[in-house]
Amino acid sequence: MAKRRSDQLRPIKITRNYTKHAGGSVLYESGDTKVLCTASFIADQPGWRKGSELGWLTAEYSMLPSSTHSRKSRPRNGHTDSRGTEIQRLIGRALRNVIDFEKLGPNTIYIDCDVIQADGGTRTAAINGGYVALVDAIDKALKQKLISENPIVGKVGAISVGIVNGKNVLDLDYQLDSTADVDMNVVMTEKCEFIELQGTGERTSFTHSQLNAMLKMAEGGIKKIFKAQTLPSSKKRK
Amino acid sequence: MAKRRSDQLRPIKITRNYTKHAGGSVLYESGDTKVLCTASFIADQPGWRKGSELGWLTAEYSMLPSSTHSRKSRPRNGHTDSRGTEIQRLIGRALRNVIDFEKLGPNTIYIDCDVIQADGGTRTAAINGGYVALVDAIDKALKQKLISENPIVGKVGAISVGIVNGKNVLDLDYQLDSTADVDMNVVMTEKCEFIELQGTGERTSFTHSQLNAMLKMAEGGIKKIFKAQTLPSSKKRK
Amino acid sequence: MAKRRSDQLRPIKITRNYTKHAGGSVLYESGDTKVLCTASFIADQPGWRKGSELGWLTAEYSMLPSSTHSRKSRPRNGHTDSRGTEIQRLIGRALRNVIDFEKLGPNTIYIDCDVIQADGGTRTAAINGGYVALVDAIDKALKQKLISENPIVGKVGAISVGIVNGKNVLDLDYQLDSTADVDMNVVMTEKCEFIELQGTGERTSFTHSQLNAMLKMAEGGIKKIFKAQTLPSSKKRK
Amino acid sequence: MAKRRSDQLRPIKITRNYTKHAGGSVLYESGDTKVLCTASFIADQPGWRKGSELGWLTAEYSMLPSSTHSRKSRPRNGHTDSRGTEIQRLIGRALRNVIDFEKLGPNTIYIDCDVIQADGGTRTAAINGGYVALVDAIDKALKQKLISENPIVGKVGAISVGIVNGKNVLDLDYQLDSTADVDMNVVMTEKCEFIELQGTGERTSFTHSQLNAMLKMAEGGIKKIFKAQTLPSSKKRK
Amino acid sequence: MAKRRSDQLRPIKITRNYTKHAGGSVLYESGDTKVLCTASFIADQPGWRKGSELGWLTAEYSMLPSSTHSRKSRPRNGHTDSRGTEIQRLIGRALRNVIDFEKLGPNTIYIDCDVIQADGGTRTAAINGGYVALVDAIDKALKQKLISENPIVGKVGAISVGIVNGKNVLDLDYQLDSTADVDMNVVMTEKCEFIELQGTGERTSFTHSQLNAMLKMAEGGIKKIFKAQTLPSSKKRK
Amino acid sequence: MAKRRSDQLRPIKITRNYTKHAGGSVLYESGDTKVLCTASFIADQPGWRKGSELGWLTAEYSMLPSSTHSRKSRPRNGHTDSRGTEIQRLIGRALRNVIDFEKLGPNTIYIDCDVIQADGGTRTAAINGGYVALVDAIDKALKQKLISENPIVGKVGAISVGIVNGKNVLDLDYQLDSTADVDMNVVMTEKCEFIELQGTGERTSFTHSQLNAMLKMAEGGIKKIFKAQTLPSSKKRK
Repeated sequence: MAKRRSDQLRPIKITRNYTKHAGGSVLYESGDTKVLCTASFIADQPGWRKGSELGWLTAEYSMLPSSTHSRKSRPRNGHTDSRGTEIQRLIGRALRNVIDFEKLGPNTIYIDCDVIQADGGTRTAAINGGYVALVDAIDKALKQKLISENPIVGKVGAISVGIVNGKNVLDLDYQLDSTADVDMNVVMTEKCEFIELQGTGERTSFTHSQLNAMLKMAEGGIKKIFKAQTLPSSKKRK
Repeated sequence: MAKRRSDQLRPIKITRNYTKHAGGSVLYESGDTKVLCTASFIADQPGWRKGSELGWLTAEYSMLPSSTHSRKSRPRNGHTDSRGTEIQRLIGRALRNVIDFEKLGPNTIYIDCDVIQADGGTRTAAINGGYVALVDAIDKALKQKLISENPIVGKVGAISVGIVNGKNVLDLDYQLDSTADVDMNVVMTEKCEFIELQGTGERTSFTHSQLNAMLKMAEGGIKKIFKAQTLPSSKKRK
Repeated sequence: MAKRRSDQLRPIKITRNYTKHAGGSVLYESGDTKVLCTASFIADQPGWRKGSELGWLTAEYSMLPSSTHSRKSRPRNGHTDSRGTEIQRLIGRALRNVIDFEKLGPNTIYIDCDVIQADGGTRTAAINGGYVALVDAIDKALKQKLISENPIVGKVGAISVGIVNGKNVLDLDYQLDSTADVDMNVVMTEKCEFIELQGTGERTSFTHSQLNAMLKMAEGGIKKIFKAQTLPSSKKRK
Repeated sequence: MAKRRSDQLRPIKITRNYTKHAGGSVLYESGDTKVLCTASFIADQPGWRKGSELGWLTAEYSMLPSSTHSRKSRPRNGHTDSRGTEIQRLIGRALRNVIDFEKLGPNTIYIDCDVIQADGGTRTAAINGGYVALVDAIDKALKQKLISENPIVGKVGAISVGIVNGKNVLDLDYQLDSTADVDMNVVMTEKCEFIELQGTGERTSFTHSQLNAMLKMAEGGIKKIFKAQTLPSSKKRK
Repeated sequence: MAKRRSDQLRPIKITRNYTKHAGGSVLYESGDTKVLCTASFIADQPGWRKGSELGWLTAEYSMLPSSTHSRKSRPRNGHTDSRGTEIQRLIGRALRNVIDFEKLGPNTIYIDCDVIQADGGTRTAAINGGYVALVDAIDKALKQKLISENPIVGKVGAISVGIVNGKNVLDLDYQLDSTADVDMNVVMTEKCEFIELQGTGERTSFTHSQLNAMLKMAEGGIKKIFKAQTLPSSKKRK
Repeated sequence: MAKRRSDQLRPIKITRNYTKHAGGSVLYESGDTKVLCTASFIADQPGWRKGSELGWLTAEYSMLPSSTHSRKSRPRNGHTDSRGTEIQRLIGRALRNVIDFEKLGPNTIYIDCDVIQADGGTRTAAINGGYVALVDAIDKALKQKLISENPIVGKVGAISVGIVNGKNVLDLDYQLDSTADVDMNVVMTEKCEFIELQGTGERTSFTHSQLNAMLKMAEGGIKKIFKAQTLPSSKKRK
């Protein structure tokens, strides 16, 4: 396989209707990273919304034990998976940004992101695939007349970018990620405005001009992701 | 689709090497039921085996939230998934029956069975797919010289059988299962001897002669499963 | 003590009204195995039954820390007692089989099975004693006019049977159980039809004809248990 | 039944060797209150004692679900039984007071107090019965030469006393306890010195002279308990 | 610093309005022991009070990890802090003793006692500071017309007393507490009647006359605490 | 009080040695936000570091129940405080960035951040105060010769910045934060390079040029924080 350029995305494959029970079900693959993203429309509100006519969207993120290099134990006995907690909060904020909760009405969308195979970039894959699953679940809810107006008011795309060996690199796989000096996740709207920005100097700090260069690179990647998200499904389950 | 005969299995599809990190990784599909079964070889013993040279095999079973008709919450806050607990104990016993723990040496095999899509028969699918993953993980461990002798001493196949509307039926899908009067899971060796037998009169009791007829039908099904398990993978991941 | 024949039950002792608060309270003794089984009638439904007029029966099984050969820690900190979970599901299914939930109305029966002393066969003792406690709790509820019709529609008896040193044995105590090749628990109605059947080849597999012989032996034992259950209490608390 | 005088104990019945696995096993009955108290000698230290030659004694207290007037749910899902926590700390302190931990050596005694039937005074019954079980477990450990010297350096007895309708009352049963203005638990040595004293003004406060009168009454009761503890077992299990 | 006499309290400092959100907020300092006590008035009842017009008061006690000599881990994963459980039950009982729950109406007072720095006597500091916070929260609720009548019907003061090296000592700091033979906590009304009394012979037992001497000493201390509680705040936050 | 300019910090007050047990103990106040930050030096490694000579730093963040506008329940029963989890991961990453773990040797630093009073900006206050506590704990460890070289290799400062009503604002208090369209937390080194950057479009997205303006404003604020951190303690505990 020809080596990937540093500003090139890994190949993306989006399989819609991957499973049959959830309103939206998407297998999002970015290189060897595979995340099953489903969106379930539930005709109920979380407790703290009761009394209002507003809906909510909540996200959960989990890795299958066998998805990682060495087997990851299932969370149990009250042990918190704190990395997973941080990631699912990010996914939820990103997708809530494009929902009009009045139009959603007193309903809840659950976005479940389950990592089947991890090779870096699972959180951005979860956002990108979760967005597509959200679109499909809303389409279905509109057809079933569970809601009368489309509550989705924008598009969401996400990508990682970082500095590895002094060089800016787009879409870090596990190998790149584990040697990166700086690691940044960028979530954008289709107008290339920021929804979320999370940058960490893992081993070092980074300057404002390095930041600007990374953000430029991320913008280029996200534009391609928006295209992939709106293509017909790469492979459709019959 | 032509209607299935009452003694006919649903179509089986076994995809080996479905993911890349675990020693054995199998997507086992039986009709619309899809279970990802992986086997991980860990060079360590559970605490209670320390001091001996014997190994162990343990199984875990879980359903993805979106795998069922209505979304299933993830177990959390110490809530036990008691159905899952019962099932993973069954899977573990069934597969331990064909392992020689002296030959396995001071190592542990984790069998992870994660239901991607549920349509009845997930526990027998988990046993059948788990067995194939076990074979692959042991092959890999032998090649890597982690063990010197094959500890697998037999084959394992499993199928459900039941009584629906007064009629014996093989391989119950969700629709059949939810209307069955009797539901039985049968685990057998390749000599058609029993490893596990679990029969429940859900709505009624059943006679010894009804039992015998069901066991005959199960035997026929398990013979076909043994063939499918030893075929080359239906679809191989490159 | 004369040695027990292989098709002979251990002595059974049933003490009704063993404690005073629960509707039914039975100390069920089978040899050195002693299980306190109580049935509590609660005028409420589990959440998922609300809106219907149907009742429910649920069972819980637990061992006192000092009931076993070496002290057993109490379950805590979210650790699941997975063996106990499996057993209490079995007890619940067995006893629900003989309840008409329409006649029970919007009420719940709790069957609590607490092992005072364990010497093998605690789960079948729990079913046998639980059934007697259920009968007494229902009698009391009828007298108190909490329900107007008896919802119990059959009898339930249970026994273990196994293969030890190549020989079929009824009613395994701890010593027999820990050396058994095959271990089977059988739950039957008074017409000797099966309600539950759980057989495990612990160290080996077993043939259909071995199964038939074991089931015959179990049937003989259960007939004697039905007699014991309907005798007046062996020892009545004043 | 003739009414009990206000300074009279309920009838006490102590059954030693009630179960067979633990070193000491005592059913302690005080009127309708029945507590199974066992003492298990474990040849190991708690983590924080490692490195020393000192032993430890720890107590656990629990109520069976059916032991109370209305069924008490089992603690689960991390919910703390805070009343039980307070009681088991009291039992542990009381019994540790008469142990020489150097003579006990690097071993742990577990005192398990499981309430079979509750009718007031379960915590003092647990201390009284726990002491007898402790004596028996130490006897057995001495005979088995697990320890060479008796580490028990005194006797422990406990009783409740209170003020009900303005009148001092000894040994409160549930009926008295639930209407008491003041409730006090007293733990003493055989020289009638205090080990623990816990008094609570449930509905009111109490004066120093009321305290003195109650303590006098408690002293009288505890003297009778010391006699009962040293009698041969009321009923001995063969 | 001049050495404290054995019947002398450590210096007390009471800072009211220490934080701004809770109805009552008091930093209670006794020597080096510092406990932040807050009282929150919540217009809701606990579940078991629903249907009545009665209120409730509940207390929680916790130590900051850095408050103790060696860092104390936060309770987590379902581990119970059993010492804390015992203490918060004591605080709750002590303060409920002076509340008229009819006058409180269907409301709940939360008393939060968080130990900022521990040097012995944190539970009595929590009661003393909790009482002042309670008074302030009730004052505020009266001003806000959340309740129309003052439900506080008495005063509460608490102090520890013990026997150290054969000598009675008031107000044990950590150094004294860790060498005490007897440790007693006394809670009193302003009429010097007892609300709670908890005495423990840590290393020895104690006689009735020793008890009387300790109680006398405690009474002297509590009288001074009542004065401190009613003084204007030592230092008032603007 | 004169209104704060939009690029002005709230008044900072840093009290070192606020409590006496931890190596470093700092009350960090920024306006009405008060966070107690302690650093404890523990001569031990986390399990996964064993076998190496490297140390670790871990942070925990918690809010006292009474620190917020309406009382916040303590986390319990395995319920995760997911916001707190996210924040303590941020604090840990920020402070680990300036530690040389070889120089720290096989030791662990615990940073405990307990919010006494919350008024916006608690996570940046925790980082700023945590850094000062870290410096003090390391000083103490050097003096006690627990380590021989200073492992701190840089400085850390943090501040929030956001867009409120279309206008950039520095150091958001609760009032500003709850109405902000964009909310960003910036962590920098003393050379004004980024360690962490977390920006969220709460109600809207934001452009690259808006980002640049906010980062400029944050830089100005952090420079002033570096000055405050190196001043002698505002108020020193004797």
